Amino acid sequence: MTLDKDTRFLIVGLGLLGGSYAKALKKQGFSVEAVTRSQSTIDYALEQGIIDGGAAFPDPEIIGRADFVVLAMYPQTLLDWVKEHQRHFKPGALITDVTGVKTCVVKPVQQMLRPDVEFIAAHPMAGRETLGVRNADDSIFRGANYIVTPTEKNTPQAIEACEELGRVLGFARVSRLTPEKHDEMIGFVSQLTHAIAVALMTCNDIEGLEKYTGDSFRDLTRIAKINDEMWSELFLANREALLEQMDQFTAQFAVMRQQLAAGDREGMRDVMRRSTVRRKALEKQDERK
Amino acid sequence: MTLDKDTRFLIVGLGLLGGSYAKALKKQGFSVEAVTRSQSTIDYALEQGIIDGGAAFPDPEIIGRADFVVLAMYPQTLLDWVKEHQRHFKPGALITDVTGVKTCVVKPVQQMLRPDVEFIAAHPMAGRETLGVRNADDSIFRGANYIVTPTEKNTPQAIEACEELGRVLGFARVSRLTPEKHDEMIGFVSQLTHAIAVALMTCNDIEGLEKYTGDSFRDLTRIAKINDEMWSELFLANREALLEQMDQFTAQFAVMRQQLAAGDREGMRDVMRRSTVRRKALEKQDERK
Repeated sequence: MTLDKDTRFLIVGLGLLGGSYAKALKKQGFSVEAVTRSQSTIDYALEQGIIDGGAAFPDPEIIGRADFVVLAMYPQTLLDWVKEHQRHFKPGALITDVTGVKTCVVKPVQQMLRPDVEFIAAHPMAGRETLGVRNADDSIFRGANYIVTPTEKNTPQAIEACEELGRVLGFARVSRLTPEKHDEMIGFVSQLTHAIAVALMTCNDIEGLEKYTGDSFRDLTRIAKINDEMWSELFLANREALLEQMDQFTAQFAVMRQQLAAGDREGMRDVMRRSTVRRKALEKQDERK
Repeated sequence: MTLDKDTRFLIVGLGLLGGSYAKALKKQGFSVEAVTRSQSTIDYALEQGIIDGGAAFPDPEIIGRADFVVLAMYPQTLLDWVKEHQRHFKPGALITDVTGVKTCVVKPVQQMLRPDVEFIAAHPMAGRETLGVRNADDSIFRGANYIVTPTEKNTPQAIEACEELGRVLGFARVSRLTPEKHDEMIGFVSQLTHAIAVALMTCNDIEGLEKYTGDSFRDLTRIAKINDEMWSELFLANREALLEQMDQFTAQFAVMRQQLAAGDREGMRDVMRRSTVRRKALEKQDERK
């Protein structure tokens, strides 16, 4: 399957991400329908021209006419939904998702799925500290990364179509990882990062913070305003990988604490220089993209 | 002493911060001179109209005509400089600084200082990941915090003049703390924050980061590009306070690790909700400023 103007999209779960997908796809001229939980979401999306049609229940007719289905739900909800409603998928349909952890989604979905449809997972690395279709905004994809996580069960055509979707949505960089490698990577760059921000924001009850903080504290705690329902689920869904990343961070932090306690200025400077080199390399590669 | 158009400023150390002070003060019509290490810095600053005069050595004449002296140097250099050159200060002169740690500077300076001049310390909480007068930019003070740290040796007049300086420079919020309370606060909001960013940037040598990072990792590591000479000195100058903050953070991080390992979803969500409440409160107070 390749994407063309006849490709009919279905978004399941019209929240911030699902809504942003719908907006981007409509702008590119695709037909987009949605099924989601609340009628007011559907009404709003229709009024705004974000979707061409939709229902506040898993309407078999709508599901049955989609060529490309985007499951934009939390991991457990996604698994339950596929189990219950996959019988309505159109034969040959391509199914993808937006979940931030992959192993715990890809394996069970590919195992339970009808043989005449294909699930190819992807992680759009974009988001906001806001929720819902009313905050949907496809500009969040600009400059962002999109990771496709194929397995041996995927066809080259499906992988290509999913990568094409990432480009159509406007992502700056589309890449490929195995689900396992993805989860290790995300345990580090995303989940560890959120765990650190939350720990920093809650480790000290000091009063009057706003009078004394500089940009650095604000930068490190921006993501400490966190959707507890989603992130606790994502953390638990990637428990082993995240625990390992937390332990690596803790070990490095302990080394730095020891250097400070011992007055080891050269050791401290050495770590800071390595940090600077690595951060600069990240910026340089960003510029090349 | 009150600030008026006849107040003659001297900046000692014309780097990023010293240069930004000079720019802001010149714009307000004050006379500004500078002594610093390199002649090319003086030449550049004169060409740009950032200073009215200056020397690449501690010129007794220049030092002797300043009413308000800003010591914009690292802590140890500052102490050595005051010891050696305080004999040139004009009687009645007011001396301030820009150092990011206070106890280790304020106490020794006030102890050694001539009785006919006064040292009133302040911490301008603004900076950049760049160095030198060529990057000086007084817009970094906008929206930022300025903390004056008086002791029992300071006069109300000097405290007021120093607070007035903060406002003249363009800081959004001027407040007052004891040096000890300042160092505890800064150990948390600034130094712990930098230690965390450096640990995050150096705890994992994973390749190809740029293809997989979202905004969160970039936000948390922006300050991981760090001036190792300055920050190792600042960390060591505030060792006890920073160690305590590092230990508090480590303890909270360990609690969260334990919750994850135990699958304690409710405990995790509870911490995330507290984090969200605290972060929102910080934003609300920011808006009020």
